Amino acid sequence: MSNEVESKIAKLGFELPPAPDAVGFYVPVVKFGNLIVTSGQLPIRSGNVVFTGKVGDEIHETEGYDAARICALNALAQIKACVGDFDRVKQIIRIEGYVHSAPGFQGQPSVLNGASEFLVEVLGERGKHTRTAVGVCEMPLNAAVQLAVWAEVEDAGSET
Amino acid sequence: MSNEVESKIAKLGFELPPAPDAVGFYVPVVKFGNLIVTSGQLPIRSGNVVFTGKVGDEIHETEGYDAARICALNALAQIKACVGDFDRVKQIIRIEGYVHSAPGFQGQPSVLNGASEFLVEVLGERGKHTRTAVGVCEMPLNAAVQLAVWAEVEDAGSET
Amino acid sequence: MSNEVESKIAKLGFELPPAPDAVGFYVPVVKFGNLIVTSGQLPIRSGNVVFTGKVGDEIHETEGYDAARICALNALAQIKACVGDFDRVKQIIRIEGYVHSAPGFQGQPSVLNGASEFLVEVLGERGKHTRTAVGVCEMPLNAAVQLAVWAEVEDAGSET
Repeated sequence: MSNEVESKIAKLGFELPPAPDAVGFYVPVVKFGNLIVTSGQLPIRSGNVVFTGKVGDEIHETEGYDAARICALNALAQIKACVGDFDRVKQIIRIEGYVHSAPGFQGQPSVLNGASEFLVEVLGERGKHTRTAVGVCEMPLNAAVQLAVWAEVEDAGSET
Repeated sequence: MSNEVESKIAKLGFELPPAPDAVGFYVPVVKFGNLIVTSGQLPIRSGNVVFTGKVGDEIHETEGYDAARICALNALAQIKACVGDFDRVKQIIRIEGYVHSAPGFQGQPSVLNGASEFLVEVLGERGKHTRTAVGVCEMPLNAAVQLAVWAEVEDAGSET
Repeated sequence: MSNEVESKIAKLGFELPPAPDAVGFYVPVVKFGNLIVTSGQLPIRSGNVVFTGKVGDEIHETEGYDAARICALNALAQIKACVGDFDRVKQIIRIEGYVHSAPGFQGQPSVLNGASEFLVEVLGERGKHTRTAVGVCEMPLNAAVQLAVWAEVEDAGSET
């Protein structure tokens, strides 16, 4: 099933990257009980933020959508780094999406659909989640999107 | 007790609506273990956002308060849709409030008291919760307020 | 171990304050199962917000760092008020940081390192956490930083 997830990621033209480092004095992901939460993921590839600026002005909504996809990809990388295998992911519970928004931009839901659709495309029913979507004025490293992901994993008792 | 909750809602002049649909590719509420979290609820009635614009400029703080109440009402609708009965709600744990704020507006706590007071009015002690309150510059659909709610519910073991 | 935490706080030149009151109609901290979450903590000392304004303009990034430390200190006060003893804190899971940001300010991670480093300095490995870091345009009471903290505590079963 895990290979299935990675093969679906590949079919969408992506590759699961190494889990990005934290941008500060914190850890990128933590497991407690049978829950996982990631730190806020930025649209980082190979150490660089690849989508910067305010959506709706400096960059287009469709680029925001692409940025949100990369954030979701990075969140999956964190989750895999944490539990080793996507088989153990029972459900993506929640994503918290922050969209770096130009004045008057109200398309935060469309931007974050980039992440939401990606998670369902690669995880199926297990990828369905709740969501918050807010527009923020400033963002670390001028990133276009930030995304934190909560997931439920199989009980430790079911580890093999 | 559940009818009691709905009768208290009625006394405040409201009616529990059908749980609003998600505004994007996500689900409006999820249960995991004995926790529930809703997606960000907007001040939607019958499919329309009824309070739009920046609080402190385009709309008054008291309208923001009213908007927050409707967000809380919608969150209760999501919770009921998820667990079927308010009897199963043990505690509202947390609300995350985002207030669409005009430059210089610092009354986010007063606005969100609309949600906080409503939850305690209808759920009593079970409605008491922690809160985050931030001012944001842009909001999906130009909504005045967005509210996500976490609740603890009775263990599945106590289901009848 | 708890005295050790408070003595480390003292070595950094701070003293654990009484847990600050809520700034509105909510509670400052809640425990559910073996988790705790605090409400958004502001840089309050003795009832006053001591760092106000937008970081990167009205106040300097280093003052934002100091503000974030006080938010973390207040969060620890809430956690102690909730569980009585830092011995019971198993892990700081997550901090949610909101930085009141001037236009163009992108140093939210540096500001929030004030909280992150403080938590690790006083709690060691148990203080390591995930983080979200966003820039917001307006803040309750004009505070420079707001910080909510999630922690995992020992199971009630281990209570003595």
